[in-house]
Amino acid sequence: MKKILILNGPNINLTGLREKNVYGTKTFDDLLQLCREEADRLGVELRCVQSNHEGALIDALQQAWFDGFDGAVFNPGGYTHTSVALHDAIASVPMPVIECHMSNVHARESFRHVSMTASACRGQVVGFGFYGYIMAMRALVECE
Amino acid sequence: MKKILILNGPNINLTGLREKNVYGTKTFDDLLQLCREEADRLGVELRCVQSNHEGALIDALQQAWFDGFDGAVFNPGGYTHTSVALHDAIASVPMPVIECHMSNVHARESFRHVSMTASACRGQVVGFGFYGYIMAMRALVECE
Amino acid sequence: MKKILILNGPNINLTGLREKNVYGTKTFDDLLQLCREEADRLGVELRCVQSNHEGALIDALQQAWFDGFDGAVFNPGGYTHTSVALHDAIASVPMPVIECHMSNVHARESFRHVSMTASACRGQVVGFGFYGYIMAMRALVECE
Amino acid sequence: MKKILILNGPNINLTGLREKNVYGTKTFDDLLQLCREEADRLGVELRCVQSNHEGALIDALQQAWFDGFDGAVFNPGGYTHTSVALHDAIASVPMPVIECHMSNVHARESFRHVSMTASACRGQVVGFGFYGYIMAMRALVECE
Amino acid sequence: MKKILILNGPNINLTGLREKNVYGTKTFDDLLQLCREEADRLGVELRCVQSNHEGALIDALQQAWFDGFDGAVFNPGGYTHTSVALHDAIASVPMPVIECHMSNVHARESFRHVSMTASACRGQVVGFGFYGYIMAMRALVECE
Amino acid sequence: MKKILILNGPNINLTGLREKNVYGTKTFDDLLQLCREEADRLGVELRCVQSNHEGALIDALQQAWFDGFDGAVFNPGGYTHTSVALHDAIASVPMPVIECHMSNVHARESFRHVSMTASACRGQVVGFGFYGYIMAMRALVECE
Amino acid sequence: MKKILILNGPNINLTGLREKNVYGTKTFDDLLQLCREEADRLGVELRCVQSNHEGALIDALQQAWFDGFDGAVFNPGGYTHTSVALHDAIASVPMPVIECHMSNVHARESFRHVSMTASACRGQVVGFGFYGYIMAMRALVECE
Amino acid sequence: MKKILILNGPNINLTGLREKNVYGTKTFDDLLQLCREEADRLGVELRCVQSNHEGALIDALQQAWFDGFDGAVFNPGGYTHTSVALHDAIASVPMPVIECHMSNVHARESFRHVSMTASACRGQVVGFGFYGYIMAMRALVECE
Amino acid sequence: MKKILILNGPNINLTGLREKNVYGTKTFDDLLQLCREEADRLGVELRCVQSNHEGALIDALQQAWFDGFDGAVFNPGGYTHTSVALHDAIASVPMPVIECHMSNVHARESFRHVSMTASACRGQVVGFGFYGYIMAMRALVECE
Amino acid sequence: MKKILILNGPNINLTGLREKNVYGTKTFDDLLQLCREEADRLGVELRCVQSNHEGALIDALQQAWFDGFDGAVFNPGGYTHTSVALHDAIASVPMPVIECHMSNVHARESFRHVSMTASACRGQVVGFGFYGYIMAMRALVECE
Amino acid sequence: MKKILILNGPNINLTGLREKNVYGTKTFDDLLQLCREEADRLGVELRCVQSNHEGALIDALQQAWFDGFDGAVFNPGGYTHTSVALHDAIASVPMPVIECHMSNVHARESFRHVSMTASACRGQVVGFGFYGYIMAMRALVECE
Amino acid sequence: MKKILILNGPNINLTGLREKNVYGTKTFDDLLQLCREEADRLGVELRCVQSNHEGALIDALQQAWFDGFDGAVFNPGGYTHTSVALHDAIASVPMPVIECHMSNVHARESFRHVSMTASACRGQVVGFGFYGYIMAMRALVECE
Repeated sequence: MKKILILNGPNINLTGLREKNVYGTKTFDDLLQLCREEADRLGVELRCVQSNHEGALIDALQQAWFDGFDGAVFNPGGYTHTSVALHDAIASVPMPVIECHMSNVHARESFRHVSMTASACRGQVVGFGFYGYIMAMRALVECE
Repeated sequence: MKKILILNGPNINLTGLREKNVYGTKTFDDLLQLCREEADRLGVELRCVQSNHEGALIDALQQAWFDGFDGAVFNPGGYTHTSVALHDAIASVPMPVIECHMSNVHARESFRHVSMTASACRGQVVGFGFYGYIMAMRALVECE
Repeated sequence: MKKILILNGPNINLTGLREKNVYGTKTFDDLLQLCREEADRLGVELRCVQSNHEGALIDALQQAWFDGFDGAVFNPGGYTHTSVALHDAIASVPMPVIECHMSNVHARESFRHVSMTASACRGQVVGFGFYGYIMAMRALVECE
Repeated sequence: MKKILILNGPNINLTGLREKNVYGTKTFDDLLQLCREEADRLGVELRCVQSNHEGALIDALQQAWFDGFDGAVFNPGGYTHTSVALHDAIASVPMPVIECHMSNVHARESFRHVSMTASACRGQVVGFGFYGYIMAMRALVECE
Repeated sequence: MKKILILNGPNINLTGLREKNVYGTKTFDDLLQLCREEADRLGVELRCVQSNHEGALIDALQQAWFDGFDGAVFNPGGYTHTSVALHDAIASVPMPVIECHMSNVHARESFRHVSMTASACRGQVVGFGFYGYIMAMRALVECE
Repeated sequence: MKKILILNGPNINLTGLREKNVYGTKTFDDLLQLCREEADRLGVELRCVQSNHEGALIDALQQAWFDGFDGAVFNPGGYTHTSVALHDAIASVPMPVIECHMSNVHARESFRHVSMTASACRGQVVGFGFYGYIMAMRALVECE
Repeated sequence: MKKILILNGPNINLTGLREKNVYGTKTFDDLLQLCREEADRLGVELRCVQSNHEGALIDALQQAWFDGFDGAVFNPGGYTHTSVALHDAIASVPMPVIECHMSNVHARESFRHVSMTASACRGQVVGFGFYGYIMAMRALVECE
Repeated sequence: MKKILILNGPNINLTGLREKNVYGTKTFDDLLQLCREEADRLGVELRCVQSNHEGALIDALQQAWFDGFDGAVFNPGGYTHTSVALHDAIASVPMPVIECHMSNVHARESFRHVSMTASACRGQVVGFGFYGYIMAMRALVECE
Repeated sequence: MKKILILNGPNINLTGLREKNVYGTKTFDDLLQLCREEADRLGVELRCVQSNHEGALIDALQQAWFDGFDGAVFNPGGYTHTSVALHDAIASVPMPVIECHMSNVHARESFRHVSMTASACRGQVVGFGFYGYIMAMRALVECE
Repeated sequence: MKKILILNGPNINLTGLREKNVYGTKTFDDLLQLCREEADRLGVELRCVQSNHEGALIDALQQAWFDGFDGAVFNPGGYTHTSVALHDAIASVPMPVIECHMSNVHARESFRHVSMTASACRGQVVGFGFYGYIMAMRALVECE
Repeated sequence: MKKILILNGPNINLTGLREKNVYGTKTFDDLLQLCREEADRLGVELRCVQSNHEGALIDALQQAWFDGFDGAVFNPGGYTHTSVALHDAIASVPMPVIECHMSNVHARESFRHVSMTASACRGQVVGFGFYGYIMAMRALVECE
Repeated sequence: MKKILILNGPNINLTGLREKNVYGTKTFDDLLQLCREEADRLGVELRCVQSNHEGALIDALQQAWFDGFDGAVFNPGGYTHTSVALHDAIASVPMPVIECHMSNVHARESFRHVSMTASACRGQVVGFGFYGYIMAMRALVECE
């Protein structure tokens, strides 16, 4: 049975509570619930981690690898655009990591148009809200 | 029955024939075949257009809208990084357009890290090879 | 009798159908009708060409010159900001070309603030909607 | 009866006396005479102000608004490319202001290719010499 | 009794009349009235100068110093972002000068994010509307 | 009774111990004592948090909002200039946050001239040492 | 017998008719004639294509490869400096392509100093007028 | 008898009173006295103008030309680095203008390393304090 | 007896497990063992801290200073290139800190060519693998 | 009999000994031999100079001109990208100079994409290995 | 008796022979003669050195200092804009060095607008042809 | 017995005589003496070369390789930041070269923060004064 890490970065825990014109009104718990339902359908085991700490996100990626996980869906939030350390962490773990952003970052402020982390990832899914996590989970299972 | 445009830009027709270390050995016809099979599963009608001409890609987007299409999966190839005209064409048609790149553009030359077209799109799928088209087609059907 | 080319670039044919907050609700046909009425008043012959193809716009400029036209009103649309080829085409034909933009490009995205084509033109008219074409046509006739 | 401000910035008073290869040999008085004749044809009242002082140009824009003017034709000269204060002044007054340059600024030094003021204006007329003032005056009267 | 200069730059005199979504509806006279009331509470003498002229603002800073003033609250308006001359004027006078902006300049156009003048000032107060002037006046009196 | 968070970022705890030519010799404890005395005068409740961890600062902002706080005085220290995650955290919580820097950052190294966080804040107070915290606390209470 | 494509981009067809101070007075037909004579000397078969359409240039490169051509002499004209799509087309076809410019692009406007296409080419010949085509043809035949 | 304008820009009138580590302790009156003595030696007539107003400096250049002056020594102070209007004024008047800076601007802040005005001048003298004015005056008289 | 902190940043704990072409196959434990052996030779006491958390690295630097340490060997990993907070932490503690990178960062991606932290350090050792830690430890002991 | 200078810059003398994946295994002596054979065929006299000294390269260009040479083939090596002095030397001598690079500099590090010297040259030959020298020699003889 | 070094950089020896529209027709020997005559008038001893070698210019500056020279007039030619080594050499010798350019470098190509060496010099004289050397020599003697 | 080249660039010969606040008061001869003593301890043969000439430094690197040297300690001085030619020379010789700077270049002017040469070196030692040469020599002997 495949094991997948759902890793969410800073402020994603406030989803549905904040900036509703950008992210909609469904909450972070709704997102996790959705992911768990899809995990059941796909027959994969899920570990969900959210942290506002850059270091904790690195810890979680390393731990997942140590624990034999098969991949990760990762929304690095604001760290996407500046973090060399997260780039290196993704490059360090051999499992595939898929970068996922709920909003279309290319249609927002220019400092969100560049990703430091994407070059180390397997792929990127941008702009599909909660559904993007489903897309990424399926890709980890279905895409060779 | 939903109608979806599969629109491919310059040099995509050479897929499988060229730069095999980047794109693999499956051909462009294999890609179209794969998309058609998925279309059958999803119960959608498909129109497939490939052109090396920027203007022809704009024409195709406009025509699809005139013909009542419900969305497009669009790989603008090399025009992704420079074309204001394609950006405007995507913004002009009210149907959702999903930008799709087979390779992870963020891990290639720096001039491929910026997309002129993405900000006008519904979302973006990057780095999943042929499977990315499947992801995008499903998103047009399933994602609200 | 003077002959003037009215040359419109990509997506201008959608005017009135798209992004109405930027361009208003009058259609591209309304624009051509307006130009033709002004042409009658000015006593000039008109050729109207619209294309989404950068190459077709170059072809049209060259053809107008071969056919002895006296000038052109040219809205290069999205090609304005990137096309060296159009710059060279305008510089190649000895007849005066006036760059015309309906919206105030300086008040929109920063990539629209720069014009590659303007330096090769006789002049530039920006921000007056359909009326800008009238201004440019009159300038071709009246301005020494 | 409409009231229009003809506002000219630094060194425009030397027109016809200086850099004749760029601006021709007609003088600044010739320009004002031309504008007054057109004003008579259009049936509008004219106020003509020229100053080398950035602050005096702001004062003139504010005063015209206080005095109920209907619009302005404004050649900010060298202040075009650097003045945030003039940008703010134009944005502050609700009447339409049309930026006007006699020479084709895009074909001169690169520091003349950018306009700080244009984004706050109604429109821009570039490269038509004295005739550009006529175009701008007519636009204030005729263009909705 | 301490003497404080309240110095306002270009277009600040239009406050309350212009761009009300940015600055609110209270007028420039209301601002001066508010400052005078606070001056009474603080027991300081006030000189209020507003000018659209960069040179007049420099003159006023120099004059205040010649007249033995103890400090200045200075809103340079649009000159904030470009004026080396004002920077030098502030650096030239030994009295403390506090830069004050009513709106949050960091949340507006990017050309407002940089201040040429701030490095020569004692400090900066940004984004508190009229109340920012009160903050700055108190700082001149209370902050060592 | 209003509740205010005093939030201090990396290395602020060393104030008075380090770089005395920049920050003076009063210690971080002196600062907190000063804030508490002012809180008593203003009749507000205070929570003081200092951390060198970017994530802990985000946590503290979120927690303050969950606990019904009315605003925050925030000195993000070195994270000011690079942290998109803190920008997003400030934008996520509806309470007003005031950015506060003891030194005049504009007169120091150029990498300190830009603030990533300020655009999400209510306002900014720069260069007044400990007194800046007093200014910011009063602004949270007095400024509408 | 070797087969060589002579591919010319936008506005090259006007050679000898335009900007004579840059390109001289010999016409495009003279150029083709010169190339054909050299082809006879070298014993190679020639296909000559000129188009103002970026897409048509890509088509021609692909077609030449499909038809078993041994190499191409390519003057991309104004597309040289911006076209990622042409870069990709050249990289896609395994035959050697030599970039050729008649004028010394390094001595003209700065936007002509950068080539997007050269990195995908076998080599580059710049500044020798018509003779540069001869040099490139010979190189395709003689240079290992 | 030759007539020379000694033109000084913003804050130069404070010389000797301000930033003594940069400019020394001799006053602006000492400078003018020195220039007048040199004028007597050279047998030239002097007009000395100082203003903090950019526009007044332009006025003075134009007036000197109207009055038949033979040249100017010009220290544009802080306007040196930003003023297109002064550049144009210098270019407009046919008499030679020599740019003069007392301090070595290249050894100060980076925004002082660029001069907008120098390209329109006859020459530039930098870093010799008061003596630089003597050098410039002599150059106007002696240098062909 | 001197006390030295060996401080390692994000992902250094994976050394020998990851990107072996860059860092070789010896593990992080091997590195610590090597440092301890050298410490014995040099007669110094060692504290070894590794963390993926930027804040924890700052904490460790501060704590070492509080505990009377004599210096630190610091490999900030990915935080090297972006962290103002770490720069400030190094500048805050009076003990010498030596920046150490195992790989030659100048021969890798361009974002690794710049160090935010080095300017606050005593010195920098780059490209010598594990041996670089030995060099830095000796320098703390031997170099005045 | 025409006289041609073959001028080679720094490290070219190591050709065939160094970086063989870039330049191949033939040596610098092989190159000179090849040039001499071609010189015999063309009936021209050859002077071959190689130096690692920028100044010696300038000396050689000047000397060749003093000695009545008819042109030069010049590979400036690493000085290509930075040397204003070599640019000026080439511009100073009236004989034509052809810049020649063995490797395709556009396909290497970005600092090799710009040439300071090319704008002063007659033309440029890039990417043809030793054969490029033959091309350049022939061009000096055959191209008008 | 004061000793002054007249130091000239690359290609200055060609003065009068090259680019006559920029530098005029007087030769380098004329320049040296002029300097020697002025030296006699000033009663100073002269050493004249010209070299195309950057290192030889550094050697000459060092030697002059070792030999007790009182100052240098230095025209670094093309090395002005790029040479850190010359900057350091000038900063290393305690005697005053005056940078001198015959042409107005600010009115030429943009790469000539920046000087790497000027910040280490005593002052700079630009645009006065041969006479600039006279100005600089006098300044070394007369300016305190 | 290993042979090591100690190679010093421009102005290093003035060490101890110049800019003593940056480099201290010990002289260049002291440095060479120190290196020779260390060489005796390490049992290696030393060749010491210093030159102000970029070309001579390249010559010395090449010669050392021809003479079978085992490595070099290289302080390129001011050439560090601009020399592509030195970069190529280091890359050309297969022996390891260690870049060494006495001062902490990262804490000085920004043009010293970038090294053109480091990417071709084995490693870099920065900021340890004379002791850095000892570190580098030991690394050549001890580090695998």
